Amino acid sequence: MQEYRSFSLGDQGELKIGGVSALMLAKKYGTPLYIMDEDQIRWNCLQYMEAMSRNFGRKFQVSYASKALCVKAIYPIIQQEGLCADVVSGGELYTALQAGFPPELLHFHGNNKSRQEIQYALESGVGLFIADSMEELETLEELAALCGKIPRVSLRIKPGVDAHTHEFISTGNIDSKFGFCYETGEAMEAVKLASRLPHLNFCGVHCHIGSQVFLQEPYALAAEVMTRFMMEIGRETGKVPEELNMGGGFGIAYGPEDKPLPIGQMIDGLGQAVKAGCQKYGLELPTVIVEPGRSIVGPAGVTAYTVGGVKKIPGGRVYAAVDGGMPDNPRYALYGAAYQAVKAEDPAGERTMTVAIAGKCCESGDLIAKEAQVQPLKAGDILCVFATGAYNYSMASNYNRLPRPAMVMTWQGQDRLAVRRETYEQLAQNDL
Amino acid sequence: MQEYRSFSLGDQGELKIGGVSALMLAKKYGTPLYIMDEDQIRWNCLQYMEAMSRNFGRKFQVSYASKALCVKAIYPIIQQEGLCADVVSGGELYTALQAGFPPELLHFHGNNKSRQEIQYALESGVGLFIADSMEELETLEELAALCGKIPRVSLRIKPGVDAHTHEFISTGNIDSKFGFCYETGEAMEAVKLASRLPHLNFCGVHCHIGSQVFLQEPYALAAEVMTRFMMEIGRETGKVPEELNMGGGFGIAYGPEDKPLPIGQMIDGLGQAVKAGCQKYGLELPTVIVEPGRSIVGPAGVTAYTVGGVKKIPGGRVYAAVDGGMPDNPRYALYGAAYQAVKAEDPAGERTMTVAIAGKCCESGDLIAKEAQVQPLKAGDILCVFATGAYNYSMASNYNRLPRPAMVMTWQGQDRLAVRRETYEQLAQNDL
Repeated sequence: MQEYRSFSLGDQGELKIGGVSALMLAKKYGTPLYIMDEDQIRWNCLQYMEAMSRNFGRKFQVSYASKALCVKAIYPIIQQEGLCADVVSGGELYTALQAGFPPELLHFHGNNKSRQEIQYALESGVGLFIADSMEELETLEELAALCGKIPRVSLRIKPGVDAHTHEFISTGNIDSKFGFCYETGEAMEAVKLASRLPHLNFCGVHCHIGSQVFLQEPYALAAEVMTRFMMEIGRETGKVPEELNMGGGFGIAYGPEDKPLPIGQMIDGLGQAVKAGCQKYGLELPTVIVEPGRSIVGPAGVTAYTVGGVKKIPGGRVYAAVDGGMPDNPRYALYGAAYQAVKAEDPAGERTMTVAIAGKCCESGDLIAKEAQVQPLKAGDILCVFATGAYNYSMASNYNRLPRPAMVMTWQGQDRLAVRRETYEQLAQNDL
Repeated sequence: MQEYRSFSLGDQGELKIGGVSALMLAKKYGTPLYIMDEDQIRWNCLQYMEAMSRNFGRKFQVSYASKALCVKAIYPIIQQEGLCADVVSGGELYTALQAGFPPELLHFHGNNKSRQEIQYALESGVGLFIADSMEELETLEELAALCGKIPRVSLRIKPGVDAHTHEFISTGNIDSKFGFCYETGEAMEAVKLASRLPHLNFCGVHCHIGSQVFLQEPYALAAEVMTRFMMEIGRETGKVPEELNMGGGFGIAYGPEDKPLPIGQMIDGLGQAVKAGCQKYGLELPTVIVEPGRSIVGPAGVTAYTVGGVKKIPGGRVYAAVDGGMPDNPRYALYGAAYQAVKAEDPAGERTMTVAIAGKCCESGDLIAKEAQVQPLKAGDILCVFATGAYNYSMASNYNRLPRPAMVMTWQGQDRLAVRRETYEQLAQNDL
């Protein structure tokens, strides 16, 4: 069992999540079921808020990266914990606004925002645009002028730092679709354009070096480049931007081989690096922003499945077939991600079985885990997979026309439905 | 431009799909847009029907694998062309039934069918169950007895054939979650169980050796094993099953390196192998079933995107950002699949640009193609990506809360909406 505050053992030795029996939740809401522990989410938020405050006083923001999990129920929680939120599309913006999240606390990201999305964000009063291309700056200026607004704009910079992570989620190196390149001078050109355009309030620079990053060094390298760039901006334009957004990407533990530093320690390292850069380049400390997503919601999530059957292949694997699969969690299929799982009835029991956790899709790659160590399983058991709070529901599909699971939130012994289970009728609602 | 009957050039040199201008469709329905040419779908169906008839007289079925594209609009087309259909879940079954497809022509597949799904299929009068495990046979017997039915049942067999394809979609070798193993005797045990259970009408055997297969040899090897097994079944039980289902997996051309044989030639090869097996093992020719999915709808599909901008990275790639991405086509992210694309305005123009076609998601792996040769592109251009008819809409997600695109069908110069574009409201419809 993973060592998170969410998890405990019940009187019968069964798994409890946020003080609620996983077996009871599976029975009450059906499976597959996403279970999110609100208490763990809040605790993760608090770690960021405290660490940022410790390092930067009152000049900081923690902006939740909605793409990790964008459902209405998340927004009141992060708002109460004092966070802002990133959105990357009109759909995420819509969801946050529907949940009553204050638009001025929203940051609008994306490498290819459409005119309609920019218009929607301007009209909604979004607090910050993180611009990604010259075309976007021009479009933003045009639309801001039309509706008589002067939005705050930050620029996404490629600092040229490689975060030593999976190729697909490493985004700070220069051969990336995102942002403006520092090394080539493109970033400074973008600064000049953004400073010149009359309906843009250029206020900051942003970088994001990758995802599922465990090392402090790439953040420190990025902080050095970004503070140097801020100094250069001051020299070129006469005004140092007031905000430095260091992005997110803080790694979490999916399996025992993942060794993330505690959130506080990561932020302390970042704080030191930013301060060192500011000192080196003679800058006042800017408002510093970080954008955690996965590390807020990932560890707070568990997916409960019902085992349909266990197949032992002579000379091959043992397959435990569950009632979900790559439609609700595509991360093994996409990245070869490794997940840990337990039998909900006996999570502390000896893990004597090595199984491939197979989904119910007609596709061999439909696995949740290739080699999971679990307690002995049989048909009818409830299997709980850990650390599924991020990039599971948000990446879920209806492949094989499987309805997307429901999501419940637990909180100190209570549970409530956060997302209803999809229905067959909804699967075909747009079919003519 | 790919050489399919769907594609032609208009008077201005623009791309026409099914006789309809892609530019017009993009304007009329918006982008991203899935465009399916009904004429191409029907033509592909006809190739299978003619080839199967040529090889097997009247004793054959072509069963469309719904998982490739399961929307209501597909079912009247395949029914009119004389095909049956495979479904792999309650959701696919629901969709086919809603479209008015006759339940007796439906084959119900899946490695982990739930009791609810089996019940639903029994009550709906599904024509054939392809059973995948002993547990499923027992459950099917129990539920069939309860509702007083005797469903036709085929057994999925692992013939132990490797289809020399991507690991994720190779399913005929014995270390697979699917079916009963021939070599170990498990398959014969399943036959005996299915023959013994009073509410099951055991009628056939099934195999599926993989997906995107280009070679005839693996099908021939599988036919050899399967006919031998049928002979052995006759010897053991006194009755040779009447149906031999050889599955699907017939490859299509995504790029120039893919060289699929014509459908007729693949089926002729299969016909020879099945007949040779029957002769060798002294069997009458059974009813032979094939299950194409990708090769029916894949080449008939094109996705039209609007280019948002083109970014040249000094010393790196050129990124053409489109208004969709991995949510509407996850196949590059999942399999590294290669797609070809053209500028809709000038598809026959010289391809002087090498671009990474990047989506609008906040993820570096969000590419449609890593290195596509295209006509020079600029913001506002309509880019058409070929061979997206299979496993695109069916695998689509709402990652980054992007609404799923609309789908139109073209047919000899006409167009009609087949699937409405998803709305922001629908994205959050289950959020509480």
